Amino acid sequence: MQKYSFRNDYSEGMHPDMIAALSATNLEQQQGYSEDVYCEKARTAIKEKIGNNDTDIHFVSGGTQANAIVITSALKSFEGVICATTGHINVHETGAIEATGHKILLVSSEDGKVKPSDIIAEINKAEDHHMVRPGMVYISNSTEVGTIYSKNELTALSAVCKSHGLYLYMDGARLGSALCSEDNDLTMSDLAGLCDVFYIGGTKNGAMMGEAIVIVNDSLKKDFNYHLKQRGALLSKGRLMGIQFMELFKENLFFELATHANKMSKKIADAIKAKGYAFLTKPQSNQLFPILPLKLIAKLSEKYEFYTWKKMDDEHAAVRLVCSWASKEEKVNEFIEDICK
Amino acid sequence: MQKYSFRNDYSEGMHPDMIAALSATNLEQQQGYSEDVYCEKARTAIKEKIGNNDTDIHFVSGGTQANAIVITSALKSFEGVICATTGHINVHETGAIEATGHKILLVSSEDGKVKPSDIIAEINKAEDHHMVRPGMVYISNSTEVGTIYSKNELTALSAVCKSHGLYLYMDGARLGSALCSEDNDLTMSDLAGLCDVFYIGGTKNGAMMGEAIVIVNDSLKKDFNYHLKQRGALLSKGRLMGIQFMELFKENLFFELATHANKMSKKIADAIKAKGYAFLTKPQSNQLFPILPLKLIAKLSEKYEFYTWKKMDDEHAAVRLVCSWASKEEKVNEFIEDICK
Amino acid sequence: MQKYSFRNDYSEGMHPDMIAALSATNLEQQQGYSEDVYCEKARTAIKEKIGNNDTDIHFVSGGTQANAIVITSALKSFEGVICATTGHINVHETGAIEATGHKILLVSSEDGKVKPSDIIAEINKAEDHHMVRPGMVYISNSTEVGTIYSKNELTALSAVCKSHGLYLYMDGARLGSALCSEDNDLTMSDLAGLCDVFYIGGTKNGAMMGEAIVIVNDSLKKDFNYHLKQRGALLSKGRLMGIQFMELFKENLFFELATHANKMSKKIADAIKAKGYAFLTKPQSNQLFPILPLKLIAKLSEKYEFYTWKKMDDEHAAVRLVCSWASKEEKVNEFIEDICK
Amino acid sequence: MQKYSFRNDYSEGMHPDMIAALSATNLEQQQGYSEDVYCEKARTAIKEKIGNNDTDIHFVSGGTQANAIVITSALKSFEGVICATTGHINVHETGAIEATGHKILLVSSEDGKVKPSDIIAEINKAEDHHMVRPGMVYISNSTEVGTIYSKNELTALSAVCKSHGLYLYMDGARLGSALCSEDNDLTMSDLAGLCDVFYIGGTKNGAMMGEAIVIVNDSLKKDFNYHLKQRGALLSKGRLMGIQFMELFKENLFFELATHANKMSKKIADAIKAKGYAFLTKPQSNQLFPILPLKLIAKLSEKYEFYTWKKMDDEHAAVRLVCSWASKEEKVNEFIEDICK
Repeated sequence: MQKYSFRNDYSEGMHPDMIAALSATNLEQQQGYSEDVYCEKARTAIKEKIGNNDTDIHFVSGGTQANAIVITSALKSFEGVICATTGHINVHETGAIEATGHKILLVSSEDGKVKPSDIIAEINKAEDHHMVRPGMVYISNSTEVGTIYSKNELTALSAVCKSHGLYLYMDGARLGSALCSEDNDLTMSDLAGLCDVFYIGGTKNGAMMGEAIVIVNDSLKKDFNYHLKQRGALLSKGRLMGIQFMELFKENLFFELATHANKMSKKIADAIKAKGYAFLTKPQSNQLFPILPLKLIAKLSEKYEFYTWKKMDDEHAAVRLVCSWASKEEKVNEFIEDICK
Repeated sequence: MQKYSFRNDYSEGMHPDMIAALSATNLEQQQGYSEDVYCEKARTAIKEKIGNNDTDIHFVSGGTQANAIVITSALKSFEGVICATTGHINVHETGAIEATGHKILLVSSEDGKVKPSDIIAEINKAEDHHMVRPGMVYISNSTEVGTIYSKNELTALSAVCKSHGLYLYMDGARLGSALCSEDNDLTMSDLAGLCDVFYIGGTKNGAMMGEAIVIVNDSLKKDFNYHLKQRGALLSKGRLMGIQFMELFKENLFFELATHANKMSKKIADAIKAKGYAFLTKPQSNQLFPILPLKLIAKLSEKYEFYTWKKMDDEHAAVRLVCSWASKEEKVNEFIEDICK
Repeated sequence: MQKYSFRNDYSEGMHPDMIAALSATNLEQQQGYSEDVYCEKARTAIKEKIGNNDTDIHFVSGGTQANAIVITSALKSFEGVICATTGHINVHETGAIEATGHKILLVSSEDGKVKPSDIIAEINKAEDHHMVRPGMVYISNSTEVGTIYSKNELTALSAVCKSHGLYLYMDGARLGSALCSEDNDLTMSDLAGLCDVFYIGGTKNGAMMGEAIVIVNDSLKKDFNYHLKQRGALLSKGRLMGIQFMELFKENLFFELATHANKMSKKIADAIKAKGYAFLTKPQSNQLFPILPLKLIAKLSEKYEFYTWKKMDDEHAAVRLVCSWASKEEKVNEFIEDICK
Repeated sequence: MQKYSFRNDYSEGMHPDMIAALSATNLEQQQGYSEDVYCEKARTAIKEKIGNNDTDIHFVSGGTQANAIVITSALKSFEGVICATTGHINVHETGAIEATGHKILLVSSEDGKVKPSDIIAEINKAEDHHMVRPGMVYISNSTEVGTIYSKNELTALSAVCKSHGLYLYMDGARLGSALCSEDNDLTMSDLAGLCDVFYIGGTKNGAMMGEAIVIVNDSLKKDFNYHLKQRGALLSKGRLMGIQFMELFKENLFFELATHANKMSKKIADAIKAKGYAFLTKPQSNQLFPILPLKLIAKLSEKYEFYTWKKMDDEHAAVRLVCSWASKEEKVNEFIEDICK
């Protein structure tokens, strides 16, 4: 029997509407390299959601690619990017940023977030040309440990970046889940107002593959296609991404899918809280990090797949549980029963 | 009225069987990062066609990505890759290879092919540590100008590479068309015997997206996944590529699609020959480069899309005409009529 | 009146014996690119001091260059180098290591040293190909905060590196001062036995310019000249470095100069201790980090140059005081008087 | 008996005035990193010769370093540098430019020079973001094959660069010899008017080590020190370069030394012409490329060192003969006699 997986939010394929759209448009001849009509429709739909027509939107196949290209295209060779120790670019991208020549300037973080004081500290450290100069701040929303930024927090980060000449970049691999969190007070329009560039994650929210990079700051727009092509990110049949993002944003599918994932996670979180277990970080999005007894973890592992995140003491560990747009409610209920038994 | 396009072989989507397979498997939970069962099935199917189980097969989303990763993973930082002046990595990848730190060592070529004497000349030039040392030879089959390598040619290249300690790498963006050419005498098994690494192009032969890198030489296999991840090429939902390549190779779809493209191109080539026009390079695959009167080009441009490749004289230019797995025979016939009129 | 400087150990030129040797050999015609007889003599002299003829020795013009070339030549593109947070490559080289594509894997350190447990922790973190793999450990001796490694400490680091397949690299910008410390129990022969590669700093110990990279591990020797040339480190007139290192090692000048620097620093350290001031790190070499009252710092700053290193509280800061091979004893005495007044 | 060498212009040490100046200033305490008074004096002296105070001048230890840093600091990651096939950065720097991520865009050249039409052709080739965009033109004066640029030629190159938004960069490794050629009509002031950046070679004209990069275009000045440090080019004791360039330019030593080298080469060239031998390229500077019978080459090789450059036919080869600031006239005379015998 195959175990049911709460390991991540990319275990299933794509939303059926996308398959239907791929099928319906399949034999049309379209321009290559994301210059097709579907990419254009997707761009228009996203700009409407943002409420800002003066953005450039590019599609790439994954988050590591998005991060490396955005960061290297924005920085001078001797500039670095400020990032929380938990940041995806620091931990889980095999040095993709450094491979483009840039240092990641690390700030310690327990909750996965960067604070304005961290940025100031890094700027003060960088005295002269013997040191890497901070050029950008990288944040993830939701973070790699499931937390989300409030409007106040993002506004403060944005202000400190602007006043010190740093770009603010948001990795939105799980932006849908962040924006649909019960705790969220940010809108897509806020993002465009507060970030210089961000990306909207498709892969982890119902698409088979694709992230939409939204460039707000004019100085980052020029020549971006050169960077995409040089880094192998310009797909011949960019229509694949255009069609998926068109489906996500022509109505509200993007938000509906994220809401489902969050709702499933919330059910699990509530059950875990009710049982009296603590969490490594505040449960706010589709990723949960409860601290469970090792015995319970062992028992759950017989039926379910998930990561053991961090050993806490001899009898407990934090695990990561992730729900997706496609998580089945009956499986979630079953899992809750198995926890509560 | 939309013009019919002979501009390239990536204007249409994917073969309908692939959509069906995507649909049928869509909601299954699968491992991420190309460790799913479909990638595994695709690998098995490809190894059978090659007749060599002792290869490593990796899937990436495009040719530029494949080229950059294969080349940089194989070379030491001071080594370069020998390439024809017409080579895709030299002309149309925005310096992707140099962006990984490696020099392309250029050899002049009219027919798009590298010759053993070119390789010897480059080796002799590289006297000492003041010069880039050749470490690999890059060839494309079919080439960027539509020609193909014969078994004799490839055997000779392979021999000179082996005797001088160079890797031989074949860019197979249009490998299907090459292997299904009437002039071809190479098998997939030959490729594995003569090349150290090559890739099988899916994107230009019926897939929406995907190239299968086949690593034959053991010394190139180790740690390849690290390179894929570092360069942003490891897709979370690698199943997309696995499913497509499974469809291409579980039977003979890969060859059937290429044969169709070649057949359509051949019809056009024969008609052009019959009209007495010359070709820039020998028509052997799905890309044709006839030299036509500018007046005819202008007339055809009213109904069809294609590239004007090279001005030949005041009254003639070479154009590029490309047929794909999805080119419609009635459109091909119509085009031929328009040429012959 | 010019202030006397304890700011660093590179404020003066080169030992007069070196100028004499430059003058005596000046008009001889010599081979370029460090293939001259003086580089060869310097290599022979160094190998004798090490007691190991089976090493490769290369000369470069500075420490940042040495570090970048040693590290990038040793690592695969996806590998990183473990380094203390205080390490020169992390703090003061403007991202030179990252500019070659490699991540620095940071371990916290108060005393400037890396511990075996730090290395084990980094190895355990790097689970799979989504993470940078540690490939080398970088240490400095003396460290950037003036401390030195004992034979026991270096032996333990070497053992953990060997058993986990990591290279151990020692940055010896101030190796002379470390080896001539009263606390030292390491010999040059020990270094060659315990490190895979290290460099002997000339610039900060009496040379105008030059570091001697000593490669012990055979697998790091091959093709090193290619890396030197590619990174702009192969000087046409390498004789400049050969002559200086010949002078440093034909007798014991290297050790005599470092001993002088240490002796001058020791006098200052003893006086500061006698006055009851604490130190940020243990005074062991030519760099001292006493914690002084801000008022005293202000007073000393009128006559002397030195860095204020770190604010400790509202009334105290740690400063950095450095003596060199050329520090004048009368100025040291005067400085001591000014402290004690 | 040691052979007398005409192999290159870096076989001897430095002009004795420089040794004297090093000695005289040796024990002074000076600021590090080229912020000492001698670097400042050298900058002032050079600016006076150029007649332009509005330049930034930086010193580095060698030509490969200068080229890599100038080029990478000026270009965006997807931009390339146009260069003659004979160019030093293309042939003899082990891919140093590519190691910084940039493609060299090659134009064929027999006489070592780039022509305006070459530049236009490269610009026209670079249609869109699938291709490397030219961002700079690299020329050498004198060229690697001994020829020099006239004022007309340089003016034409400068005009085409300006009108197409490309930087013009002159590698002046042998600038002294070029400017002191009998055929020369360029002044240092012209260089500053026509180039965006150039370097004045010290190593091959009497210095032990050092090149002075002169940045004229304001947009290239900012943050250059960061690039220097990141690439390992910022010497702790930059005074070494300052003192040498101060000596070269406080009076006219730079020009006197080059004039001597040219005069010695001219004597040899005249003798070779008188004997009726042809030259591979026009003899204009301190590098000569006569085509000699293999028998004569063999005979000369018994007493002299020089490179055999290129086989011409079964009985002739071109050799490279180089005179330096330190070439002895009696040896030159002896060599001439040996040719004429």
